[in-house]
Amino acid sequence: MLIQHLPLLSTKRIVLASASPRRSQLLQSLGLNMEIIPSTFDETLNKSSFSSAGEYAAETALHKAIEVSRRTYRASDQTQADIVIGADTVVELEGMILEKPTDEDDAAHMLFKLSGRQHRVFTGVSLIFPSACDPVLGKTPLVHTFWEETSVDFGELKKEAIEAYVRSGEPMDKAGAYGIQGIGGSFVKSVTGCFYNVVGFPLYRFSVELDKLIAKGALCL
Amino acid sequence: MLIQHLPLLSTKRIVLASASPRRSQLLQSLGLNMEIIPSTFDETLNKSSFSSAGEYAAETALHKAIEVSRRTYRASDQTQADIVIGADTVVELEGMILEKPTDEDDAAHMLFKLSGRQHRVFTGVSLIFPSACDPVLGKTPLVHTFWEETSVDFGELKKEAIEAYVRSGEPMDKAGAYGIQGIGGSFVKSVTGCFYNVVGFPLYRFSVELDKLIAKGALCL
Repeated sequence: MLIQHLPLLSTKRIVLASASPRRSQLLQSLGLNMEIIPSTFDETLNKSSFSSAGEYAAETALHKAIEVSRRTYRASDQTQADIVIGADTVVELEGMILEKPTDEDDAAHMLFKLSGRQHRVFTGVSLIFPSACDPVLGKTPLVHTFWEETSVDFGELKKEAIEAYVRSGEPMDKAGAYGIQGIGGSFVKSVTGCFYNVVGFPLYRFSVELDKLIAKGALCL
Repeated sequence: MLIQHLPLLSTKRIVLASASPRRSQLLQSLGLNMEIIPSTFDETLNKSSFSSAGEYAAETALHKAIEVSRRTYRASDQTQADIVIGADTVVELEGMILEKPTDEDDAAHMLFKLSGRQHRVFTGVSLIFPSACDPVLGKTPLVHTFWEETSVDFGELKKEAIEAYVRSGEPMDKAGAYGIQGIGGSFVKSVTGCFYNVVGFPLYRFSVELDKLIAKGALCL
């Protein structure tokens, strides 16, 4: 849990390496203030070289956080960030990763595939403490990366519902062509696992991991 | 699914019989416009007379919707509502219903009980169509009531986290002393079922039931 650490965290420079408005909203809902520096890391890792979609998401999150942590030095007060947070979310259906749809036809095609089936959502998270020393490796920075999995059961979607949803525009910037925090939420019969992981950031797991890292002294720089 | 019915629904007078801002936000997120007429029904049904917390929530939702549907007549255009929506959410832990906390000590006590355990959340929903005829009973109004159950697994909460959370004020107006859509969301390890049912309104089930009722002609008045 993080709430008891908010006074400490409010004195730290936290950087979110993501342009996703959903992720920054989720972190703000916990009471965290942060700077946003979107990563320019090109999401081009070779998916087939990973044994799971979760590992792929975690590695992408790590690369995003590394790329941004190199750019957090602020000349005005000569500081770098205390924590850099990278994240990446992927949707997997029957072994296939679904990205953001390329156009409306692609979005409709994805939604037909998701209809009446269960799929999995993986969010990888990487936390980099640029000035902290890793207690195991004895090196700076301290880097901690993990991923979380959630199963999502879609109800049967009627053709007219898919067509109207695609026309609404909501699917276009979302992996798997739906937003669970919008109209797409009414397509979801059941979730098993962390709901916020599907929105794009696993709040519970993040809180538990950051709590452990703070207990280990990651923020007592 | 409802999205294909939005053009029809936008011509109807929909009344939400609840003062909960979370419920109206959820319904608005589906694209529905509605009037809000909070129910004055006193939530005093005898819990022990119901075989489950779900039935209790459904009966309370029904009474709320009935009470409000009597008050939807509008003199200016001599119409009553097309749909009245009642809802009630209860939290159950090991056979005991948790209401809103009475004070900060009560909130802390509830959170200690929820910590590290699984509990269940039930939302009852009642839909009343004041001018529609029930196709089975042959009577007006058409009334359709149901409830949805979701399991929620809490992580272990540290004493300092519970204390800080109670001080934040978030628990005070919420059944079970937490809000899954706020800081309380970071206490939740896993959800099994409809997430929005825990927020206070089961969007998927509502969409499916209303879709069926529309197909049966409930809105072709």
